[in-house]
Amino acid sequence: MIRNIYNGRVVTLNIETVQLPNGVTVDLETIRHPGAAAVVPVKDDGTVVLIRQFRHAAGGFIYEIPAGKLNPGEDPLHCASRELEEEVGYRAASFVLLTSIFTAPGFADEVIHIYQATGLTKGRQQLDRDEVLEVVEMPLAEAVRKIAEGTIRDAKTIVGVQAAYLRGIAR
Amino acid sequence: MIRNIYNGRVVTLNIETVQLPNGVTVDLETIRHPGAAAVVPVKDDGTVVLIRQFRHAAGGFIYEIPAGKLNPGEDPLHCASRELEEEVGYRAASFVLLTSIFTAPGFADEVIHIYQATGLTKGRQQLDRDEVLEVVEMPLAEAVRKIAEGTIRDAKTIVGVQAAYLRGIAR
Repeated sequence: MIRNIYNGRVVTLNIETVQLPNGVTVDLETIRHPGAAAVVPVKDDGTVVLIRQFRHAAGGFIYEIPAGKLNPGEDPLHCASRELEEEVGYRAASFVLLTSIFTAPGFADEVIHIYQATGLTKGRQQLDRDEVLEVVEMPLAEAVRKIAEGTIRDAKTIVGVQAAYLRGIAR
Repeated sequence: MIRNIYNGRVVTLNIETVQLPNGVTVDLETIRHPGAAAVVPVKDDGTVVLIRQFRHAAGGFIYEIPAGKLNPGEDPLHCASRELEEEVGYRAASFVLLTSIFTAPGFADEVIHIYQATGLTKGRQQLDRDEVLEVVEMPLAEAVRKIAEGTIRDAKTIVGVQAAYLRGIAR
């Protein structure tokens, strides 16, 4: 049984009555989210293109990789490509799926598909009015250090940067 | 201005009217969450202790590291230690904070503090009635492979396992 509490632009909140595999029945607060795509853009010289974005829920500006919500029915790869150009002004010759993550499976069904983009060329940045961000480029190894230091704290960004770095090491 | 939509056991949903740093005013669907702590338990021989847990929002069983919500005012380290023993039945001689992540800063303020635990000794597992999980142990390098293959998909788990692995490499 699903009791709908709220349908928003970004999230839907339901109370969902569920029988668990152990037979126990529980009411679970469940956020339904359309999902998203994100991109780790890596230049030929190993520079990664990040953003510092204002996030109200995080209380200020945080480092992130370019990302955006999926439109209804949208291919995550198309979304990744779109957000790459709109948020940081690059196009990419090649996209490889690094992983698809559950961000908060205890209460939300959001999945973010994370791609690595290479073969970058200049496109045209085009921010929405509610997007407040600046582009920050740095060596991939420096981004890995910023994770270890606690300066980069966004989950999808850490997953993507670490995965791209480990992929480079494995070669 | 904050319009409260719902106060639940796990999440609070507000519509928060915010003036962004560019002067634009927006209504943001904002999930307030108490935060959580998680643990990457690593044995002396390099085995990591994971769980396969039933998660309704994720549609089934997923690999995770032991984790739990913070009680009001609780020290994240205390929470990590408690969840380690309750979920997988281990105590640890040493905890090191790997990082603190925002799981979904586009709509939620949840922070998860992720520790690496070492010096493991047997304690007593004690599951809540709504926790359905089995303990799965494997070499840390195998967990890293399961991330690259897409078998491990939980964000906090990927962040923690990759961080513990990179920390090992850096030594």
